[in-house]
Amino acid sequence: MTDLVQLERRGVVAHLTMNAPGSLNALSDAMLAALKARFTELGTDGSVKVVVLKGAGKAFCAGHDLKEMQAGRQAPDKGRAYFADLFFRCAEVMQMIPALPQPVIAEVHGIATAAGCQLVASCDLAVAAEGTRFGVNGVNIGLFCSTPMVALTRNVPRKVAFEMLTTGEFIDASRAREVGLVNRIAPHEALAAEAGRLAETLAAKLGAAVKIGKRAFYDQMTLDLAAAYEHTAAVMVENMLWRDTEEGISAFIEKRKPDWAV
Amino acid sequence: MTDLVQLERRGVVAHLTMNAPGSLNALSDAMLAALKARFTELGTDGSVKVVVLKGAGKAFCAGHDLKEMQAGRQAPDKGRAYFADLFFRCAEVMQMIPALPQPVIAEVHGIATAAGCQLVASCDLAVAAEGTRFGVNGVNIGLFCSTPMVALTRNVPRKVAFEMLTTGEFIDASRAREVGLVNRIAPHEALAAEAGRLAETLAAKLGAAVKIGKRAFYDQMTLDLAAAYEHTAAVMVENMLWRDTEEGISAFIEKRKPDWAV
Amino acid sequence: MTDLVQLERRGVVAHLTMNAPGSLNALSDAMLAALKARFTELGTDGSVKVVVLKGAGKAFCAGHDLKEMQAGRQAPDKGRAYFADLFFRCAEVMQMIPALPQPVIAEVHGIATAAGCQLVASCDLAVAAEGTRFGVNGVNIGLFCSTPMVALTRNVPRKVAFEMLTTGEFIDASRAREVGLVNRIAPHEALAAEAGRLAETLAAKLGAAVKIGKRAFYDQMTLDLAAAYEHTAAVMVENMLWRDTEEGISAFIEKRKPDWAV
Repeated sequence: MTDLVQLERRGVVAHLTMNAPGSLNALSDAMLAALKARFTELGTDGSVKVVVLKGAGKAFCAGHDLKEMQAGRQAPDKGRAYFADLFFRCAEVMQMIPALPQPVIAEVHGIATAAGCQLVASCDLAVAAEGTRFGVNGVNIGLFCSTPMVALTRNVPRKVAFEMLTTGEFIDASRAREVGLVNRIAPHEALAAEAGRLAETLAAKLGAAVKIGKRAFYDQMTLDLAAAYEHTAAVMVENMLWRDTEEGISAFIEKRKPDWAV
Repeated sequence: MTDLVQLERRGVVAHLTMNAPGSLNALSDAMLAALKARFTELGTDGSVKVVVLKGAGKAFCAGHDLKEMQAGRQAPDKGRAYFADLFFRCAEVMQMIPALPQPVIAEVHGIATAAGCQLVASCDLAVAAEGTRFGVNGVNIGLFCSTPMVALTRNVPRKVAFEMLTTGEFIDASRAREVGLVNRIAPHEALAAEAGRLAETLAAKLGAAVKIGKRAFYDQMTLDLAAAYEHTAAVMVENMLWRDTEEGISAFIEKRKPDWAV
Repeated sequence: MTDLVQLERRGVVAHLTMNAPGSLNALSDAMLAALKARFTELGTDGSVKVVVLKGAGKAFCAGHDLKEMQAGRQAPDKGRAYFADLFFRCAEVMQMIPALPQPVIAEVHGIATAAGCQLVASCDLAVAAEGTRFGVNGVNIGLFCSTPMVALTRNVPRKVAFEMLTTGEFIDASRAREVGLVNRIAPHEALAAEAGRLAETLAAKLGAAVKIGKRAFYDQMTLDLAAAYEHTAAVMVENMLWRDTEEGISAFIEKRKPDWAV
């Protein structure tokens, strides 16, 4: 099963590749299960500091597996139970990404549509190849991208999201960066190098600091200002008391490299 | 009364024109009542799939009717009850827009100021003519645009909104698009065509999908991530079980046009 | 103590200058206390309509005083109580800015890093010199900028903030304006003039309107739509009943200057 999402370790960076190029890496039942398995595995793997997520073949990910979904209608309830379970499992995988201890970078090329675009929006960071097209275009086939919009509206301005959702039209990588869906853009042939560079930049940091910071990032987001400060101030205190942070600050003051185990 | 807001149907698109050019389509008591009447009418009109809102004459809308407001001070309570009622009715009209089943596109030219800018921000989408100027400039006459800012701050970044509100200065159409207040810009002579094209694009979709999607869009916006997914997953299930959605997906798989009644 | 933050009045504009250039205006215990004292003083000073906050020397502010923090580790509890108190005091100062009755404009040059960047994000408006660099780069020394991210994530899109926080890299003034952290940019030699112009623009407004508007701005931000309208409609009613607002509207209608005491 997990061959559907290949895992390659390069030092402390885990590269996940969705590997169903024939379906443009559609999020089939098997693909969702494979992603969940990989995220579960990485979630407790202290040797991995950064995750890169990409797609094999011509595209990053084209969303749900429509043929499989149509087949689900054969059930006596016309698929109701299957669809409820499917969207639950999909939303579960999407929510595993911000919950992972490591930062997750989407390395995007070709197209990222519907739940594939949601996957980009759910990642902490995204690097895209020039020419990549992003869309939440379920509306074109009568299925509004209601779950993808949860992630999308937490990335881009309201009117931009509404336009994408109701027109079903694509935006390109350049516009995606402008509106906040993508961090960096690279020529297609330099995409892997650019995503790798970003991963290495993050991997060079104190892993525990990135981990505690990522968690606090999402935890404080929806709190009111006073509660957000109360929460993050406590995080800062913990962070300050680590031996490695003491060393990091001393090294900075003394203009030398920190002596960090990780 | 409703002549103040003219309604023209072009197929399934309803074009609403605020028609008080002498006052730059000021949101007088009568204009607010006319807008409310039109929105109420459209809210239950299943034959309309998209609404376009524009202003007759030189401007989209210049906000409240200041002369009428000043006249309200003649009451024994100096206008307190009248003003409370006025702002309630205005906020009611603004909130009817996201609550309408159809997407509402603002077609904006000239100026959109104070509650006129709020109207643009309250619409789901906005197309503006080059040269259009947007402002929440009540502060210039001593009346801070406190209600317009509710809509504005839900469209644009915080510091951008604060600057507009406290300087009372205009931003142009290009900046408005950059910050998220406007979706598309067209030369003045091509504005109607551009807004019409956008309306037709939306009108060509399955109406029920756009309707369920628009409602979910605003419903999920303020929920936390898990609750937003729970809510929208249920919406997706309903959407999947429609006959037209089954047909839309089949048509896509079979590379043909869907056989949709609407 | 308060010499650390100099106060110069130019008419109704108060210019605060953080004055510890040797430490790049680090937010030491003394600096935080001085800022708190100044903000407390200005909070009840009805003669001040606008505040400008800047830094003496080569930079706006480089964040916490790292040497002082390291010294805090000498305590029996390794600094835990001191750090908790420090982050509390820092967050308190940051939260005083939106709570001040007057708008606060950050006039930023050189660098604004970590809590210095947080200070910019906490201000209502920001004007930056070309070439200014912004970063939340605590991660580089093992101390994730968890409290600065509270302010930052309330200014800029999610993925932009995450990238700054985890890469520790700088963004320049131009990118800072693009993403919403900065309002205006000026050549270095014109920075003071540009910030001064913005301050004078705000100072020319009816102070009471700006004051009631600023409070409502932050109060309504996190409310749901209906509650936000209910709250701000009440603010509008109060605002309308002031004599100066009546005069401001009359003057506008009569195309003359308002006869305002302030």
